[in-house]
Amino acid sequence: MSSFFLRTLREDPADAELPGHKLLVRAGYVRRAAPGVYTWLPLGLKVLRKVEAIVREEMEAIGGQELSFPALLPKEPYEATNRWTEYGDNLFRLTDRKGTQMLLGPTHEEMFCLAVKDMYTSYKDLPLTLFQIQNKYRDEARPRAGVLRGREFIMKDSYSFDIDEAGLQKAYDAHRDAYIKIFDRLGFEYVIVHADSGAMGGSASEEFLAVSPNGEDTFVRDASGYAANVEAVVVPQAPPVEVTAGPAHVEDTPDTPTIDTLVAALNANHPRTDGRAWTAADTLKNVIVMLAHPADEDHEEPWREPLAIGVPGDREVDPKRLEAQVAPAEVEGFEEADFAKHPTLAKGYIGPGVLGSEQASGIRYLLDPSIAEGSAWVTGADEHGQHVIDLVHGRDFTADGTIQAAEIREGDPSPQGEGTLTLARGVEMGHIFQLGTKYAEALGLKVLDENGKLVTVTMGSYGVGVTRAVGVIAEDNHDEQGLIWPRALAPFDVHVVAAGKSEEIFGAAEDLSAQLEAKGVSVLYDDRAGKVSPGVKFKDAEIIGVPTILVVGKGLAEGVVEIKDRRTGERREVPVAEAVEALIGEVRGQS
Amino acid sequence: MSSFFLRTLREDPADAELPGHKLLVRAGYVRRAAPGVYTWLPLGLKVLRKVEAIVREEMEAIGGQELSFPALLPKEPYEATNRWTEYGDNLFRLTDRKGTQMLLGPTHEEMFCLAVKDMYTSYKDLPLTLFQIQNKYRDEARPRAGVLRGREFIMKDSYSFDIDEAGLQKAYDAHRDAYIKIFDRLGFEYVIVHADSGAMGGSASEEFLAVSPNGEDTFVRDASGYAANVEAVVVPQAPPVEVTAGPAHVEDTPDTPTIDTLVAALNANHPRTDGRAWTAADTLKNVIVMLAHPADEDHEEPWREPLAIGVPGDREVDPKRLEAQVAPAEVEGFEEADFAKHPTLAKGYIGPGVLGSEQASGIRYLLDPSIAEGSAWVTGADEHGQHVIDLVHGRDFTADGTIQAAEIREGDPSPQGEGTLTLARGVEMGHIFQLGTKYAEALGLKVLDENGKLVTVTMGSYGVGVTRAVGVIAEDNHDEQGLIWPRALAPFDVHVVAAGKSEEIFGAAEDLSAQLEAKGVSVLYDDRAGKVSPGVKFKDAEIIGVPTILVVGKGLAEGVVEIKDRRTGERREVPVAEAVEALIGEVRGQS
Repeated sequence: MSSFFLRTLREDPADAELPGHKLLVRAGYVRRAAPGVYTWLPLGLKVLRKVEAIVREEMEAIGGQELSFPALLPKEPYEATNRWTEYGDNLFRLTDRKGTQMLLGPTHEEMFCLAVKDMYTSYKDLPLTLFQIQNKYRDEARPRAGVLRGREFIMKDSYSFDIDEAGLQKAYDAHRDAYIKIFDRLGFEYVIVHADSGAMGGSASEEFLAVSPNGEDTFVRDASGYAANVEAVVVPQAPPVEVTAGPAHVEDTPDTPTIDTLVAALNANHPRTDGRAWTAADTLKNVIVMLAHPADEDHEEPWREPLAIGVPGDREVDPKRLEAQVAPAEVEGFEEADFAKHPTLAKGYIGPGVLGSEQASGIRYLLDPSIAEGSAWVTGADEHGQHVIDLVHGRDFTADGTIQAAEIREGDPSPQGEGTLTLARGVEMGHIFQLGTKYAEALGLKVLDENGKLVTVTMGSYGVGVTRAVGVIAEDNHDEQGLIWPRALAPFDVHVVAAGKSEEIFGAAEDLSAQLEAKGVSVLYDDRAGKVSPGVKFKDAEIIGVPTILVVGKGLAEGVVEIKDRRTGERREVPVAEAVEALIGEVRGQS
Repeated sequence: MSSFFLRTLREDPADAELPGHKLLVRAGYVRRAAPGVYTWLPLGLKVLRKVEAIVREEMEAIGGQELSFPALLPKEPYEATNRWTEYGDNLFRLTDRKGTQMLLGPTHEEMFCLAVKDMYTSYKDLPLTLFQIQNKYRDEARPRAGVLRGREFIMKDSYSFDIDEAGLQKAYDAHRDAYIKIFDRLGFEYVIVHADSGAMGGSASEEFLAVSPNGEDTFVRDASGYAANVEAVVVPQAPPVEVTAGPAHVEDTPDTPTIDTLVAALNANHPRTDGRAWTAADTLKNVIVMLAHPADEDHEEPWREPLAIGVPGDREVDPKRLEAQVAPAEVEGFEEADFAKHPTLAKGYIGPGVLGSEQASGIRYLLDPSIAEGSAWVTGADEHGQHVIDLVHGRDFTADGTIQAAEIREGDPSPQGEGTLTLARGVEMGHIFQLGTKYAEALGLKVLDENGKLVTVTMGSYGVGVTRAVGVIAEDNHDEQGLIWPRALAPFDVHVVAAGKSEEIFGAAEDLSAQLEAKGVSVLYDDRAGKVSPGVKFKDAEIIGVPTILVVGKGLAEGVVEIKDRRTGERREVPVAEAVEALIGEVRGQS
């Protein structure tokens, strides 16, 4: 350690939020070079390489062939699939000296697709799985959490190529199994969740989420094993109910632009006839947003369109669920200037009377599926200070369709019908996705089938966040004192501390280190002399987090050294002569 | 091979010029993704990883510590060293979603310097050598020769940090030795040449050039071992000579704007008094160029400046030598519009009469050092159709200084004074450079010395072209039929060809392949059945270039298989039972 390029920090770095990330910086594994862009210092690079090796091994085990595409890519293939514009600001674009536009690859579906098109022509060439472990670039709006969400990061991305759906399903299942092995070996808690709304089939897309209270993704699960990304939860359409409400009637409800003020006013001035009090769940809230669409086949320029969403008044629209439904459009606020252009909208009192493509506003109107046909609602009457009571869905109003955009709450019934949902947070560590023919069609990847007919190849796309994995493992494996690496990923097997000043101590520590290295056990030997006290060395050993620490100190005079388990804190003294064997036992997993 | 992602091409690719590059594409090692940007297919990636491993091993052997910086970098450090502008169009610049300018790193001096500044404070922390093997980006004006000169490429770059010159010299020497080991192991012919004009000391910068007739760099050497990049050749100042010429006299020389027309006119109309004929070497040619400087401390904007260069009329100005002298300025033509702004210049008849900072044109005027004081010249008289004869340097004209810009020619005297120079071409494979304190000063990297005084750290910078090495090895190792890999870099150890249709042949080939793999010998097994004839398989084996080929074919009926050495073409039959042992012998280098 006297010459190792490493300095631990006593203070938390200003730019770090999460505990694991703080420790990765403080213990000298990574340093920030720019927002969302990190340098891997020698310690960090060792861990990163171990993660890469595990991912590579499991990809090769399912027949994946490794190659390496550039990060700097031509624009044309990404234009052919429309991702050049769909990616919006998330794409790093640049212009070369000749004025040619290029990009830094966010993922490589297009390039893999073109490579296979370039080389393969027949169904006999398939199935095929290709992968790379390589730098990716995304210009995140809010790079955060250190290496958990960087703008330059390493990903393993793989792509499968098959002649038919059955082949794709097989490749998908193989990847799913490989990912289970990878994440089991990496040693953090994860859950496999449905990742899309199922429109393409039940298992068309799944995510592997590392369970973490600091994760950016929310997922749900029920007692029966169902788990889904919150964006992918499909709330079933409520079955129609018998209409029991009387005719709809408009009432004056001055100064009730919010659900809270409305419910209070209803209970004060318009009590229900059945004696029950009005609640927010009796109201229908209509939220208007602006969708910003990228250019597409029908629009040469990016274009904007308002959208109205009706949800029960006791629920919010979940921005992430909404985004997932409208992607690649982005969701923007509906501003005062937009209201000015839609004079039929009475802000705070908007109701289905004017909403819908065929109605006065002309604004597309989608309802939450929990709003059953036949159910009665209190909602805006489209005049300031007025609401309408007993407005019945299907009888008094209709919408253009439904949308899965309302928030999902702890205790909601499971959409699979078994019990209720619990919510938790996670970090997306892997994603497996049955792409189908979208990219192959856009780029013309066809092969001859058995009958000599050209058929479009069907693709799968699969990713593992490699740099991100190091971040997740750090979040999952630490205590107050520092990091605690799982043995398979530790930068070194044993951290040897020479705790004292005598030549005997340094001599014995060096000798033991050399013996261990000779047996293939990697050692970080703290040989620092001079003013570095044993206390500083112990602190550094704790923060660096090598799983086994060997202390050569005062006990040496009695012929013993101390072996400490970083995770359990357990210490035991062993005779010097037995130390090497004992340590090999620890490292190899026998004790 | 029936499932390996590989297709060989019978035709040369349209975008390839050099034989090695053509073969790398045809044999399925690399594919172009964009101009100067390449994809490494599975075969190519295997070779690339072997080169990387060799470079890594030798860097670790001299105590280098590996880390990994991002490719996407902030602008500020590169502004501090002025490289943001100095790099000109060669730098890939981009702007992120927040409008922040960033760059793709061409090399990482700044980042390493800042990392050490961030972590180290004392002379006790030094010496230090750090390295990375990582993607680099340069927006070359003319990307050519495939992976020999890409716009995205992998480089090993290392940096040494020392407290003093003696330390730097030691680090430099260690790198020099390591590079010799690396290039010896990679197995191509190379030469170590002086790479700068020696202004910073004899060995301040050396290049390792792979000797190759297709190389972009020209170097010189003499019989005594001196070798230098042609840009780095320092022609010594010719010592003064006694003036023997009479007074200078202007003569009419109509229609003689070129050296050839001038010499002819002189011999026809103005014969020499000594009876010798005029030659081009008697004339002084004055070449005017425009220098385009980047912005610098004294100039907020890029700026331009004309420069006049006087060389003997039998030599050209060498654009590369000139560029090296004026860098970071770029050399541009002196156009008609520029002449219009300098009315004292008589195009085709320009002479020292108007050239020089203090003369009528005000244009800086530099002479080739071969132009001795006291020597007499025929040169332009600054009037159309007139030249001046017997114009003596030092008596009749002076310049602002000298410049090393004239072409170097085969047979020129060696600047070290031993014999004459021969010229050859090469590809820059490595560069070692004593940077000194330039970067450390610009970025404030100082440490405390023994006396507690802050001193600026002195740095070295060292590079190896890793992707380029694969290109050079391919150029150096091939024949008409295809590539021939040196054993240490071959993608596989043995190429097994099942040459026939019988089950016995495929069974034996598969069995031998499995036995070899079990012994740690890597095998590319051509198991293709159906329409792939033995002839096609042999052709593919030749072009792919695995050094040892095992043919399991007709001989099997007599119990023998054939082992072929790809390089020598030598074939020998061995009994099946002895094949594995014989092949292991070949691979391990015993026969």
